[in-house]
Amino acid sequence: RTLRIGLIPGDGIGKEVIPAGRRILEALPASLGLKFEFVDLKAGWETFEQTGVALPEETVSVLKSDCDGALFGAVSSPTKAVKGYSSPIVALRKKLDLYANVRPVKTVVTAPKPIDMVIVRENTEDLYVKEEKTYDTPQGKVAEAIKRISQRASSRIATMAGEIALRRQKIRAGGAPSIHNGPLVTITHKSNVLSQTDGLFRSTAREALAAARFQDSGVAVEEQIVDSMVYKLFRQPEAYDVIVAPNLYGDILSDGAAALVGSLGLVPSANVGEGFAIGEPCHGSAPDIQGQGIANPIATLRSAALMLEFLNEEAAAAKIYAAVDGNLEEGKLLSPDLGGKATTEEVVQDVLRRL
Amino acid sequence: RTLRIGLIPGDGIGKEVIPAGRRILEALPASLGLKFEFVDLKAGWETFEQTGVALPEETVSVLKSDCDGALFGAVSSPTKAVKGYSSPIVALRKKLDLYANVRPVKTVVTAPKPIDMVIVRENTEDLYVKEEKTYDTPQGKVAEAIKRISQRASSRIATMAGEIALRRQKIRAGGAPSIHNGPLVTITHKSNVLSQTDGLFRSTAREALAAARFQDSGVAVEEQIVDSMVYKLFRQPEAYDVIVAPNLYGDILSDGAAALVGSLGLVPSANVGEGFAIGEPCHGSAPDIQGQGIANPIATLRSAALMLEFLNEEAAAAKIYAAVDGNLEEGKLLSPDLGGKATTEEVVQDVLRRL
Ligand SMILES: CC(C)[C@H](C(=O)O)[C@@H](O)C(=O)O
Ligand SMILES: CC(C)[C@H](C(=O)O)[C@@H](O)C(=O)O
Repeated sequence: RTLRIGLIPGDGIGKEVIPAGRRILEALPASLGLKFEFVDLKAGWETFEQTGVALPEETVSVLKSDCDGALFGAVSSPTKAVKGYSSPIVALRKKLDLYANVRPVKTVVTAPKPIDMVIVRENTEDLYVKEEKTYDTPQGKVAEAIKRISQRASSRIATMAGEIALRRQKIRAGGAPSIHNGPLVTITHKSNVLSQTDGLFRSTAREALAAARFQDSGVAVEEQIVDSMVYKLFRQPEAYDVIVAPNLYGDILSDGAAALVGSLGLVPSANVGEGFAIGEPCHGSAPDIQGQGIANPIATLRSAALMLEFLNEEAAAAKIYAAVDGNLEEGKLLSPDLGGKATTEEVVQDVLRRL
Repeated sequence: RTLRIGLIPGDGIGKEVIPAGRRILEALPASLGLKFEFVDLKAGWETFEQTGVALPEETVSVLKSDCDGALFGAVSSPTKAVKGYSSPIVALRKKLDLYANVRPVKTVVTAPKPIDMVIVRENTEDLYVKEEKTYDTPQGKVAEAIKRISQRASSRIATMAGEIALRRQKIRAGGAPSIHNGPLVTITHKSNVLSQTDGLFRSTAREALAAARFQDSGVAVEEQIVDSMVYKLFRQPEAYDVIVAPNLYGDILSDGAAALVGSLGLVPSANVGEGFAIGEPCHGSAPDIQGQGIANPIATLRSAALMLEFLNEEAAAAKIYAAVDGNLEEGKLLSPDLGGKATTEEVVQDVLRRL
């Protein structure tokens, strides 16, 4: 099988880590029967400055018609609102209907307080529909935004969360060491205030997860109000397996969960739709270290693996995860964000060696 | 001066901790020249079950016309959406225009990683306007909610944050031990996605904090996007002094910050308007421990002090804080949430003894 992968480095350290993602894919053992072709694509702040658009039409159409998946680096946001500029990754998620943002957050099982959870974030609606307006009143300006929650999007994201819980359970059943007893999906919302919108998310998610295929496999379902979820995330993170949330809460919870492990430089994500996935490291463009060759490539390497998982190449993904874990467990070649001195290049070479 | 204080225990352990709040106010030394009168008021789930309304008109009108401040315990939320029920504390904040929710989160200065911050949350608008609608589409139900941000509310909450930063700075200048060098206000928003609503909050807050009275006193101002704010809250909480945020982000950040200290049972809050304040412990009604007499009263005692601060009775507030700190520092009579064995009554008596 040949996979065509779009490469969208974007800005800042995106340009340093995406090439690492490409190299790990190219280095996968031939025995897996996988080949890769790569297409370089543009998006981001620099692209906006050069062309006046942050997400060129060509990037979207090539991804749509010509690619099986992609790796996205990071984009810099302007520090002030700039007319005509809006986040290309948010647009990409919508245009390609990548309705799930999946972010695994995991420490080694031998950590003092091991964590192994996945945040499954709805990726297409909520306040991210960006329907806003501003008007004048005698008391000054007032602005409004629409938060939109649909049964359709809530149902498919909850189903995805259930599938992921099942898949994780299967891997555990295969003998992988684990901190969880059984599969658990935690639905996060604020329906005590937003009874219609978050109420719809809640009831739809409950319904989707009540399906026989989840219930027969023992997927437990519980709920947490978002504020209390953030509290629990920090007090007992080990208790959570799969957390499903509407877009904005998912955004906040993903970053919160990332704070639980050593560095943002370790945390991958994937934007997932029907048969398409974009891997995206969860760190940003990090202008403070850009160009120094010291960015941690691991979030991108793991994102490449996560992309492969959702393209049904689980064996290839497992190879990458194992190589990365080997590097981290040995702990000799770590980038500065982890307290080490290794360059991006040295970390990549160490991981490639273990592949 | 005589202060009339409304007492709204609400549900669950609210009924066990609000009496403790009353007792500490009654026990304040006569030398402070403060007298208290108390009015018992109803609100909550039990009230809803008995009367069909969660917040009786009488509670609102007595508070408005007859009280200087109040203590609010906690209310239980129904586990399913119930027609006609909606949160009485959210309604109270709006009806009394208690536009600021102030939540100090603090550890002792000698803690391994001391924290000393205040979250200042806008309390009247954002998604809490609760303007929602639901409609049918060929793909199923869709629900929408309005997020409303006004220049007026953003300006006054940012000004309140600035005032609090100044007041904290004055206390430090008086020689109180501190982990901060100078006053800092961090504006939290998501204007990279919500350029109009959160953009308005951001620019209005910036403007309010640029006022000469803040700038001349060296109040530094910075910004954090809400997802990154949650990340930073956990990675370097010691860096934050005053954080100001729109309603929903403030709700989430308050609980996140509370997770940084030992127990929710320690964390107070106040709902503050012009010349009126309601102290409110930030824990909930805790049905799991209700009726056992082991609820931690400290969040309520501190909330009573916080209420007094905003009623300009800083000396009385300082007495309560000192007595509570004495109890915690000695560590002999602690409630079970802090790993101790003391009952609510024993903790209250220990604090009263130190007053
Ligand atoms: C950059 C920003 C628009 C984006 C988001 O809010 O989705 C980011 O925080 C993320 O999580 O990918
Ligand atoms: C109970 C709930 C409606 C409330 C809120 O969201 O404001 C609570 O979380 C709080 O912070 O006081």
